Amino acid sequence: MSFQRIAILGCGLIGGSFALALKKRGFAGEIVGCDRADVLEKAKARGAIDAGTSELSEAVANADLVYLATPVVTILDLLPQVAKAAKPGALITDAGSTKVRICRLAKEVLPDNVSFLGGHPMAGREVGGIENADPDLFVGKKWGLIQDDRRGAEDAEKEFAELVEKLGAQPVWMDAETHDWAVALVSHLPQLVSTALASTTWDETDEDGLPLSLAGPGYRDLTRLAASPYELWRDICLTNGDNIARALDRLEQRLAHIRGLLRSRDLAEEFEKAQQTCAMLKRGGRE
Amino acid sequence: MSFQRIAILGCGLIGGSFALALKKRGFAGEIVGCDRADVLEKAKARGAIDAGTSELSEAVANADLVYLATPVVTILDLLPQVAKAAKPGALITDAGSTKVRICRLAKEVLPDNVSFLGGHPMAGREVGGIENADPDLFVGKKWGLIQDDRRGAEDAEKEFAELVEKLGAQPVWMDAETHDWAVALVSHLPQLVSTALASTTWDETDEDGLPLSLAGPGYRDLTRLAASPYELWRDICLTNGDNIARALDRLEQRLAHIRGLLRSRDLAEEFEKAQQTCAMLKRGGRE
Repeated sequence: MSFQRIAILGCGLIGGSFALALKKRGFAGEIVGCDRADVLEKAKARGAIDAGTSELSEAVANADLVYLATPVVTILDLLPQVAKAAKPGALITDAGSTKVRICRLAKEVLPDNVSFLGGHPMAGREVGGIENADPDLFVGKKWGLIQDDRRGAEDAEKEFAELVEKLGAQPVWMDAETHDWAVALVSHLPQLVSTALASTTWDETDEDGLPLSLAGPGYRDLTRLAASPYELWRDICLTNGDNIARALDRLEQRLAHIRGLLRSRDLAEEFEKAQQTCAMLKRGGRE
Repeated sequence: MSFQRIAILGCGLIGGSFALALKKRGFAGEIVGCDRADVLEKAKARGAIDAGTSELSEAVANADLVYLATPVVTILDLLPQVAKAAKPGALITDAGSTKVRICRLAKEVLPDNVSFLGGHPMAGREVGGIENADPDLFVGKKWGLIQDDRRGAEDAEKEFAELVEKLGAQPVWMDAETHDWAVALVSHLPQLVSTALASTTWDETDEDGLPLSLAGPGYRDLTRLAASPYELWRDICLTNGDNIARALDRLEQRLAHIRGLLRSRDLAEEFEKAQQTCAMLKRGGRE
């Protein structure tokens, strides 16, 4: 493998899991973490990184692969610094949950002699931090990859896609716009629906705990994501607002449609479509 | 226990699980099932029932406890027949998912010498049938009980509540109106939201399988219920339509509210309420 030195910027759940996954699968090169000193200490203690620094330029300087694993807005902040520090021939990739703004900025600021491959491992959890990092976090998960449309990056991109497979994930190639609309529907919308359902129930719950005390496994399934803190979602809502608004609007219309059909046999059609979705998930999913 | 002969009308998931749960916990009396012949055969083969008949009056005639475990509209159809066949002193209870119409009809048609205790074990699954019946289906689940407001039923009701506890469930006493609004929020709304999310995604999914092919564990949590067939929900939507429409309307408003806050710090408040809901569920839940 030509990636001998890997810099991981942000050693939380995703960055830490990426490092642990590499180590577990026999990566023999050097992993340098970049984060706050206390996070670096924990990452070292977990055996995720070989060295750590809070200086971005120091971490990036000799890296063949730079992995940006912070929230989206921080990635946007760091990219210009990475552009200055990256060595010629390096591949820059990231784990940002939205891709249009990141890929656009990368094109603007990165020099021609480094490549950028937008990435999104679909492996978020409702808890973050190096404490929850897991070498098998990516196993069976999809990993969105956004091809750089400039020439010359193909080899490094191909190698990174192979690495993704080695970590147990499945690369899915697409463009940034397709990605952001797709995740608005299958990731951001479910989060906000879960939040909305839980906050609606909260406002209706009385001193006796009703209706919440009657909640069964179905309600629990639907509100598991609702435990996610706002901080994890702030950047996503900020950088994919238009797509999310459109997805929310579609769902509101669908709910209103269902509301009008409660006493009609036509409601069966909505259930049938939903069942087809579940069947397709079952066929296509690797989980 | 004074329930020596128990008639179970409808030997599917709930009726079958009730029978299996009784047997597993040492019930020494007789259990008579009432259903189609092929279902009765399976119920016998699984050891759920001692005898079976497709004649309701035959099943009910000598029963101390009559358990109606069919869909809601069928319960409404059967109650007048049960009223004619039940022996004096019998306790009639049910497993219907909505309670206002059932309890009202029971009051109208049942003679004074039998008692009616509305019941709702919160233990539905997305699959039905005797094949999926489970003696531990009720363990750790809530079991809504609607007190009969006529005098004289207290002893039998108390005994049934003790039986519910013996099966591992937790009785929750309430009135029928409170029940139906509560389940609209924590059971019927989650189902329809799950259905709506899945059917919305279905309409957006293209030939390549996007966006569905990017779905992760969060989307799967939110759409697990969406596999439920319409037939399981038809009666619920028919008999609790007003409450469900109100619950849907509240959620639609909440989603529109969130849509307006996507780029605002005020969105944090929705996440905080949702997190409080999850924390309360964790504290109060026995699952």
